[in-house]
Amino acid sequence: MPATDPGAPTSNALAGGPAGPRALRPLTDTALDALTVGATARGGPLPAGGPDAVAKQLREEAGDLLPYRGEGAHTALRTLTTALAAGAADPAEPHCAAHLHTPPLAVAAAAELAVAALNPSLDSWDQAPAATALETLLAHTLAREIYPPAPGDTTTPDALFTTGGTESNQLALLLAREHHGPRLRILCGANAHHSIARAAWLLGLPQPTTLPTPQGILDPARLAAALHRALAPTLVVATAGTTDTGAIDPLPALAALTTTHGARLHIDAAHAGLLRLAPRLRHLVDGLQHAHTVTLDLHKLGWQPAAAGLLALRDHTDAAPLTWQADYLNAPDDTDAGLPDLLGRSLRTTRRPDAFKIAVTLKALGRTGLAELIEAVLGAAHHLATLIDDEPALELHATPTLTTVLFRPTDATDDDVAALRRDLLTQGRAVLGRARADGRLWLKATLLNPHVTPGDLADIPALVRDAHHARATKTPAPRTEDHTTREDSTVKEGRPAR
Amino acid sequence: MPATDPGAPTSNALAGGPAGPRALRPLTDTALDALTVGATARGGPLPAGGPDAVAKQLREEAGDLLPYRGEGAHTALRTLTTALAAGAADPAEPHCAAHLHTPPLAVAAAAELAVAALNPSLDSWDQAPAATALETLLAHTLAREIYPPAPGDTTTPDALFTTGGTESNQLALLLAREHHGPRLRILCGANAHHSIARAAWLLGLPQPTTLPTPQGILDPARLAAALHRALAPTLVVATAGTTDTGAIDPLPALAALTTTHGARLHIDAAHAGLLRLAPRLRHLVDGLQHAHTVTLDLHKLGWQPAAAGLLALRDHTDAAPLTWQADYLNAPDDTDAGLPDLLGRSLRTTRRPDAFKIAVTLKALGRTGLAELIEAVLGAAHHLATLIDDEPALELHATPTLTTVLFRPTDATDDDVAALRRDLLTQGRAVLGRARADGRLWLKATLLNPHVTPGDLADIPALVRDAHHARATKTPAPRTEDHTTREDSTVKEGRPAR
Repeated sequence: MPATDPGAPTSNALAGGPAGPRALRPLTDTALDALTVGATARGGPLPAGGPDAVAKQLREEAGDLLPYRGEGAHTALRTLTTALAAGAADPAEPHCAAHLHTPPLAVAAAAELAVAALNPSLDSWDQAPAATALETLLAHTLAREIYPPAPGDTTTPDALFTTGGTESNQLALLLAREHHGPRLRILCGANAHHSIARAAWLLGLPQPTTLPTPQGILDPARLAAALHRALAPTLVVATAGTTDTGAIDPLPALAALTTTHGARLHIDAAHAGLLRLAPRLRHLVDGLQHAHTVTLDLHKLGWQPAAAGLLALRDHTDAAPLTWQADYLNAPDDTDAGLPDLLGRSLRTTRRPDAFKIAVTLKALGRTGLAELIEAVLGAAHHLATLIDDEPALELHATPTLTTVLFRPTDATDDDVAALRRDLLTQGRAVLGRARADGRLWLKATLLNPHVTPGDLADIPALVRDAHHARATKTPAPRTEDHTTREDSTVKEGRPAR
Repeated sequence: MPATDPGAPTSNALAGGPAGPRALRPLTDTALDALTVGATARGGPLPAGGPDAVAKQLREEAGDLLPYRGEGAHTALRTLTTALAAGAADPAEPHCAAHLHTPPLAVAAAAELAVAALNPSLDSWDQAPAATALETLLAHTLAREIYPPAPGDTTTPDALFTTGGTESNQLALLLAREHHGPRLRILCGANAHHSIARAAWLLGLPQPTTLPTPQGILDPARLAAALHRALAPTLVVATAGTTDTGAIDPLPALAALTTTHGARLHIDAAHAGLLRLAPRLRHLVDGLQHAHTVTLDLHKLGWQPAAAGLLALRDHTDAAPLTWQADYLNAPDDTDAGLPDLLGRSLRTTRRPDAFKIAVTLKALGRTGLAELIEAVLGAAHHLATLIDDEPALELHATPTLTTVLFRPTDATDDDVAALRRDLLTQGRAVLGRARADGRLWLKATLLNPHVTPGDLADIPALVRDAHHARATKTPAPRTEDHTTREDSTVKEGRPAR
């Protein structure tokens, strides 16, 4: 292959301006072709071989990332996109179901292309005129879904866009710190996301007081006792959709306690918050409206490519501590003259409009379309749970609340479960997660693919059962009982490094 | 227009998997067509009319962002992409030159499409097998450019990917806090980026001690005196490429002082750091290699869509305080078994691989291609400075160091300068920035478009001179002397709301 390809003259073409789309079109064609080639080469949910083999393969395929002379746009894009796809754990593959790692909708991914081409940056209006207006509109729209107008309530809700649930939780703790000062104490369940404790560390706050959650949810009686003992201003953090099991804390009861005790309430609804938009499911997250702040995350049950996080605020004035002034972005006379002041809407400065893809998606699907997707994945989780319950070799942890199903081989130790998960990863057969519940380690399937079929689901118990049997009897898992959807296993056989 | 379009059945198609590219192709076509339509409608660097008019137009065009029934993928994508482009301040337009707001390369934008489709997330290996390997490779490649191997130096450098210079600076201060404890004092020039002070606030540290920088750079004599007075462990923050003027602090002299006084050194090289990759310019940022940490940002002189930030570390073990453990992502037995532990590489959890577009771009352009772009924009800045110096009605602040040119009408007050900038924005004629230097307010042109022509540059002084004259004489700027590249001014005339 020559060092440069015929497309080389376009290597430094810009994506924006009137000529941008002409430059982009052949390049997006190259990227899409390479995605197809890479997905076919992978032929399953992830590459086989494990981390070292995948890294070696990637290094060989990528070659020199900083050559003296460029290899041209098409060659570089084709080479690396093929490698990225061939080496992906692709959540659009039915057996890639470990994490709250969503398969993005095509319409959202296409919207990202427009954002990448225009590169609006939401740190000042003169870098993002329409994007500023669109973000404002979407923030108010989504904030009103979490905080519907209530009689007598004159506050206006708002929402801030973040890089995900973790940044939303950081912001929530920061706002609480600024409202209550460094004496603030944080109270959460052991089921809270790790980012709560990490945010406390980041912000120089004491580590949260963690209440045991043996049932997987924060018990109101336990919270009441802790609030009775509290000597300092307190932020209570509840969870709507835990990472490990998808459990939802009893939000109305917890909210009532925080009101009684004058505590501040943050709800991490990164997982379950979007249920507010699904009429048949929204009762599951009743109580969100009582929180001062709510973490949302549309790169989970919103089918967005990362990042697509929000922090909803019951009262938009609550964000005042984020006010920040930098003359080149929001000089007082510019603000007085009507240029929107955007710095106080984020801790970042340069900030891409993640609102755009979300807006395109919601407008494309509507409430009914989004609700159908959410219902589809909750339905898939219930169906998988039934299949596992029917499989004597497997034990189901519990009926799923959301999209998370925990299960394990009946005769396995915790070490077996952990090793079995790694076997499936290394063999390139399935991406399943792990979670500890009731003192034991479980395999975790998080079903976020709304197009998963009953056949795809039926494969999962069989795959796990057979892989466990193979481990137990120390035989390689039989290739003929490979229940994954891999269409051409010879491709993988010929690529042992994956 | 019907509520749904013929493309509606594809609205919930996924971007990934073997079928993803087939679903994406017609949607990317729609997005690219809409980008063209929108750019033509805009017909210049930004929409005319100012914030209220642009917001009104956007709201009318966007309609309901959360309709009961979806409008279909193509309709939603077309509608909102057209509105986003028509209402953009597009840095690919030659007269959009206010900020370090780069026009992205088409190849980088196309690479973003691949990332959006596959949605790798760098919080665990099993969400991003190849992306993990690629990020590691690029981190080491770029870290070695900042910290080349030195005789006797056995440390291995590394780099962490961030959402931009602001997050890089936050991380740098956090690592300093963790190394030295809360007694840490931060010492920086008045020319430092606002994110230094904001990060100190975020992290619960005292506000930085700010040394005056009347010459626009941090004077070593002043730093020496301050370090002599310092009673606590100190982090010195120097700047390579200020936001206001592009000035570069005297890095070797500052670095020598920090060594003498046992202080820690962070250099914010968000603007100028990439000069390390341009052989004829790298001497301008000599001294970076002496810093403990260096902020880089390829969404500035790297032509990447946001986000593309890094924090380079002279010693990879310096990142140890970021170590964090969450069983579902990096259980000890998984780490022991060889699964890469990624949580300690960021404060975020879900994290898109911004390394990918950077890697594609560097491989496409090579060192020589990137150096050509950097030299082109520095050359354009020098050329514009010459043109301004030759224009009697305008005053040039100084010969530019990087890509930033400050100038003002000779007979203008500071208020005139600020109002003139807003006039140009409101009229949709130019996006210029503002900066205070030597006690006066200046217009700021930040030239990041490598394809800007001498004619484009020649228009800028004329545009400013005429707009100032029109303000001074209270006449509307004459349309016949509109020097922008707007091809079809009738489009704009017909769209007064923009």
